[in-house]
Amino acid sequence: MRALLTSLSMTVFLASVSVADPLPSWTGTATKAGIIAFVERVTDPASADYVTPAARIAAFDNDGTLWAEQPVYFQLLFAIDRLKEMAAADPEVLTSDVLRAAAEGDMETVAASGTEGLLEIVSTTHSGLTVDEFQTEVRGWLDTARHSGTGLAYDDMVYQPMLELLSYLRDEGFRTYIASGGGLHFIRVFSQNAYNIPPEQVIGSIGNGSYSAGDGPPRVMKDPGIFFIDDKAGKPVAIEARIGRRPVIAVGNSDGDFQMLEWTTAGDGARLGILLHHTDSEREYAYGRDSHIGQLARGLDEAASRGWLVIDMARDWERIWPSGK
Amino acid sequence: MRALLTSLSMTVFLASVSVADPLPSWTGTATKAGIIAFVERVTDPASADYVTPAARIAAFDNDGTLWAEQPVYFQLLFAIDRLKEMAAADPEVLTSDVLRAAAEGDMETVAASGTEGLLEIVSTTHSGLTVDEFQTEVRGWLDTARHSGTGLAYDDMVYQPMLELLSYLRDEGFRTYIASGGGLHFIRVFSQNAYNIPPEQVIGSIGNGSYSAGDGPPRVMKDPGIFFIDDKAGKPVAIEARIGRRPVIAVGNSDGDFQMLEWTTAGDGARLGILLHHTDSEREYAYGRDSHIGQLARGLDEAASRGWLVIDMARDWERIWPSGK
Ligand SMILES: [Ca+2]
Ligand SMILES: [Ca+2]
Repeated sequence: MRALLTSLSMTVFLASVSVADPLPSWTGTATKAGIIAFVERVTDPASADYVTPAARIAAFDNDGTLWAEQPVYFQLLFAIDRLKEMAAADPEVLTSDVLRAAAEGDMETVAASGTEGLLEIVSTTHSGLTVDEFQTEVRGWLDTARHSGTGLAYDDMVYQPMLELLSYLRDEGFRTYIASGGGLHFIRVFSQNAYNIPPEQVIGSIGNGSYSAGDGPPRVMKDPGIFFIDDKAGKPVAIEARIGRRPVIAVGNSDGDFQMLEWTTAGDGARLGILLHHTDSEREYAYGRDSHIGQLARGLDEAASRGWLVIDMARDWERIWPSGK
Repeated sequence: MRALLTSLSMTVFLASVSVADPLPSWTGTATKAGIIAFVERVTDPASADYVTPAARIAAFDNDGTLWAEQPVYFQLLFAIDRLKEMAAADPEVLTSDVLRAAAEGDMETVAASGTEGLLEIVSTTHSGLTVDEFQTEVRGWLDTARHSGTGLAYDDMVYQPMLELLSYLRDEGFRTYIASGGGLHFIRVFSQNAYNIPPEQVIGSIGNGSYSAGDGPPRVMKDPGIFFIDDKAGKPVAIEARIGRRPVIAVGNSDGDFQMLEWTTAGDGARLGILLHHTDSEREYAYGRDSHIGQLARGLDEAASRGWLVIDMARDWERIWPSGK
């Protein structure tokens, strides 16, 4: 009798596991069905498209894919807050017009300065300290700064449906990586807690670094200047260098991810490219084709012919934030 | 009765597991005892020095630590063989004296050209093709080339005691990484089979890279020029960038590993630095303090005061090669 009961409860348990929805915050559209069908196809040993666990790599962009990026990249907001602090302690750090504008909160001048201006702000605020010191600064900022629109902490502005996708893929034997244009050392501060992605699975842009010892404890320093920008054509190069395997799944939200998806889906066997299109001006933001941040034009034009899935945020997501809404 | 027998055989099984020697090719010296005592200390939850599984990182140098490096770095032998092939197909690739010398097998001129000459040979032979094509070349070379001294394939000239150490550490929850001055793409060709170290856990030197598409299949190219040299002070910088954690154990054989061991063992809590001293002119090679390859002087001078273990190959290793001897 006990054996029968055990066997019965086991059956019930297995049945409930097999029908559990791995993506409960996704609406029942073709997007969700397409993702699940793909994952089942590459993880079923009987399938012609079976992928061995060692090769199950999924690469995710971060800004605008795993967490929000409007009205401006959160890392830039950190950099400007830090620049203000640095300038209050020593005004001489403001050695250029764009740095002075940033410290005054003049975002128009900052925006007009283009990539060069942004990199100057980042380089100035992300160098001259150890990696540990830098990450303590970032942690402190994340703990206190709040988003102007939502009032949420920035690392609470992660997308609940993407958390579910990350978790679903890991349950199916994938290793989930971040491949971001944002800063490697910046992202690592919150990637473990926010996404369950450990530091060794974060790929990002990085400034120059150096090792110091003798005049103090052995330490890795963040130095001025940019070492590598992990964006556009840089993403396949960095993923190859870091992982040494072509991903099976790549997920992004802008044309900065085009080459990552192109390279991923050109690999042998079954591959999946996914683009998140921000279409939800009510719950989040609506932008893409003409956006100054997260521009998505070529991706939208070519997704269908390349077989990439496009997530329509307003239509495909039941919920945006882990905190509700 | 069956339950008793099962329980009995389980006890015997567990007892035999617990007394199994994890390092059978190591002699019973203080070196082996020191390694095992350290590993037990950091993996015992009751120990004050307990390290969580996520933080259990062990970083190994490759040339002269995991495989041999005499009479010259094996990757240089590959480069020269490849240069000869390239020159046979198109003599115009030999654009400098050092390249001409290398193609003629004039190793004295090559050696006299120093690091700059070596990098020119490596850059010339490691660029102008895709990563995949390059790795096919390396695989073909490893399958056919043989070491002048031993007659062994180069990827059979790995150290059996180090294979056991890698395996022991993995059994104890460590992730084992390579941190080598040798080429990232070169090492990845054999690291999985030879060491059970997957491509994403190989850190090494790397040339410039780029992404190409449109004029052919999407691919990552190896371009001329050196992007990063993972040696000396570069090792802590690269390990930090790649893993985002300070290793608990670092293992090397030359002063090129000094900073890696210094940074590793300066971390909080229990850390272990290990240097392999090649003292065995009979079974392998004896070199170190004045060697042109794998020089080990500062490491020998400071190991005792820094608490680093020094493996004396002749004394501490029962066996060198997996194939016997
Ligand atoms: Ca993005
Ligand atoms: Ca070495």
